[in-house]
Amino acid sequence: MEVRLEPAVVNGFRFAGVSAGLKTEAGRKDLGIIVADTPIVASGVFTTSRVKAAPVIVAQEHLRGGRLQAVAANSGSANCFTGKAGMRLAQQSCAALAGSVGCPVEFVVPCSTGVIGHLYDLEKYRAGIAEAVTALQPAGLADFASAIMTTDTHPKIASTTTRVGGSRVTIAGCAKGAGMIEPRMATMLAFVVTDAALRPAQLRSIMKNILPHSFNAITVDGDMSTNDTLLLMASGTAFSPPLADGDLSKLENAIGSVAGALARELVRDGEGASKLVTVEVRGARSESEADRIARAIANSPLVKTAFFGCDPNFGRIAMAAGKAGVNFNPDLLEVKLAGIKIAARGALNVAALAEAGARMKEREFSVNLDLKMGKASARVTTCDLSYDYVKINAEYTT
Amino acid sequence: MEVRLEPAVVNGFRFAGVSAGLKTEAGRKDLGIIVADTPIVASGVFTTSRVKAAPVIVAQEHLRGGRLQAVAANSGSANCFTGKAGMRLAQQSCAALAGSVGCPVEFVVPCSTGVIGHLYDLEKYRAGIAEAVTALQPAGLADFASAIMTTDTHPKIASTTTRVGGSRVTIAGCAKGAGMIEPRMATMLAFVVTDAALRPAQLRSIMKNILPHSFNAITVDGDMSTNDTLLLMASGTAFSPPLADGDLSKLENAIGSVAGALARELVRDGEGASKLVTVEVRGARSESEADRIARAIANSPLVKTAFFGCDPNFGRIAMAAGKAGVNFNPDLLEVKLAGIKIAARGALNVAALAEAGARMKEREFSVNLDLKMGKASARVTTCDLSYDYVKINAEYTT
Repeated sequence: MEVRLEPAVVNGFRFAGVSAGLKTEAGRKDLGIIVADTPIVASGVFTTSRVKAAPVIVAQEHLRGGRLQAVAANSGSANCFTGKAGMRLAQQSCAALAGSVGCPVEFVVPCSTGVIGHLYDLEKYRAGIAEAVTALQPAGLADFASAIMTTDTHPKIASTTTRVGGSRVTIAGCAKGAGMIEPRMATMLAFVVTDAALRPAQLRSIMKNILPHSFNAITVDGDMSTNDTLLLMASGTAFSPPLADGDLSKLENAIGSVAGALARELVRDGEGASKLVTVEVRGARSESEADRIARAIANSPLVKTAFFGCDPNFGRIAMAAGKAGVNFNPDLLEVKLAGIKIAARGALNVAALAEAGARMKEREFSVNLDLKMGKASARVTTCDLSYDYVKINAEYTT
Repeated sequence: MEVRLEPAVVNGFRFAGVSAGLKTEAGRKDLGIIVADTPIVASGVFTTSRVKAAPVIVAQEHLRGGRLQAVAANSGSANCFTGKAGMRLAQQSCAALAGSVGCPVEFVVPCSTGVIGHLYDLEKYRAGIAEAVTALQPAGLADFASAIMTTDTHPKIASTTTRVGGSRVTIAGCAKGAGMIEPRMATMLAFVVTDAALRPAQLRSIMKNILPHSFNAITVDGDMSTNDTLLLMASGTAFSPPLADGDLSKLENAIGSVAGALARELVRDGEGASKLVTVEVRGARSESEADRIARAIANSPLVKTAFFGCDPNFGRIAMAAGKAGVNFNPDLLEVKLAGIKIAARGALNVAALAEAGARMKEREFSVNLDLKMGKASARVTTCDLSYDYVKINAEYTT
């Protein structure tokens, strides 16, 4: 499955991104909309934070029926910790787009990202919606992706095509996020659209299956956002249901590939990141135990600074694995770093460390642990912890 | 209770610290011993890591009877992930000191700190023990404290005196550690001695009571070491048991004050730290829920970089509280930063942020959350995340 990091036209959808003046930097795009030609099936997953932003609460309500026609996503303000005024603002924002599109307000899903604790200006927002509606076009995904950026250095877009049921199906998506990234249900903001025809239950099942291996398998800093949202939308123009089981799983793979590519793009653009590191744990007794060890390594600041310094520091990897609260036998543990076996059978392979360190100079490498206790495995993608992470987060308010 | 950050003589104990050549830097002290005049009651708590160092495993065995006569602690090598050779080395190290002191090998407790995956040289170690035994003196605590340092910038020592049962009791201790610090049972290495007379059960009870408020209430980087050890030793020369209940709790307070002072010193000397920040959560339904929120804030890299940047970033504090997995109502949350109320009743107090930011320029400040849901509270002490943290951990192998 070839996934391209570029936009694609997906029948049934139009996109736009405009500058509505919601960001403090003049002229930067900050309001994006997605409009489907008719009401379509959609599924969303959201942050599990106890401090949920107003648009997340409204989006969950509006998606209860499994259908939507439009998405309004702004940067510049997260509309989080804004009390009743924030809830009213999220609803008025949906109403603004619903009025232009001519659909019920419940068919609009709102998303916000940016500073916490502040409202945005409703009049500017309404003017932006009016402008965006006139700018809608099938090839507008890149504009939409730009409008939702905050500390991202570039828009993250991915697309692919596949054949199911004799029809060509296109899947495209975009995401934003560079910090406050350890999604537990979804990442900051991500949108995946397809022209496949899917029943709501099929769409929910695909969502559930692709999440653990895409947006829930990444971390930049172990911090979960208050606004995390992933929306998956299917316009159904590509073919008529029902799909055979084999085609459904082929489609799920294609959607999962786009979601996985977007998730990796988030980590690659992680705040201050200079390395993309895949931490894989296998030989575990359960997936959840493998995942806990992989996350402990992927989130350890000592491990992440060693990645930045190209330091083949086995001790920190062993320390992080040890603190995960999972029972394993260190004497059986086997560790590969950047493809080089640096520890096995309770002993460090000192002679191999220099070669591992040299290979850590690459932009991407992996850490592989084998616990040799079972058959379960897990994989988490992370980045390094650099001077620039401190700079970005100490010198600017987000 | 006045706790001084300086050594004291504690009757019944002698200390020494020498350079045995175990560290790569020539001439730095790297082997410390504590010897009691006779076998005494002692209690130890150790790392809960699944990757336990050999000296931790040996120390746990030797302390099973609740008595010891000597402690041998080295820096330069953690003797961790060293398999059977490491276990043998820890036992031979105990035997070397037991031979000089003239006590059973089971009365010696070994501790090691330094690089993981490497053995130290037994011959150098034995020569160091012989030299240290001749250097033993009642006023030797500062030498011992220097010998166990790794990335610490200075030795951490604390002492106090109190009167119990009509006798003057002295308590003194030292600790080491600057990174890999989020002890769950004890910190890297810490030693507290007293001349109080205590039964083993009393000593264990004191240990259990002081831990949650001292070494288990701090974090530098959320990373737990493989060698964490806290030893509490009582020589019993100050008075004859039994103690009245009131005196026992007075003694517990005094020991707790010394442990708390040492724990704070670890954070103050945290790798790259420029701020000491106390995070207090109250109004929670249980202590454990308060502790989870306090730790989520104290370990969040986004919160810690904001501390470094003196950025009164309410959003990151709210984000970290929200991800802790504890149910609370954001509309009730009240947050003080450096003594200034910055959020209450679901709204950010924007006008107060500048003053909070100005007060964050102090070397020490606090973050206080009130969940207004119950009566339980918890407190965790942490530090900021600075350029120097990245420098220390990216440019040197530990």
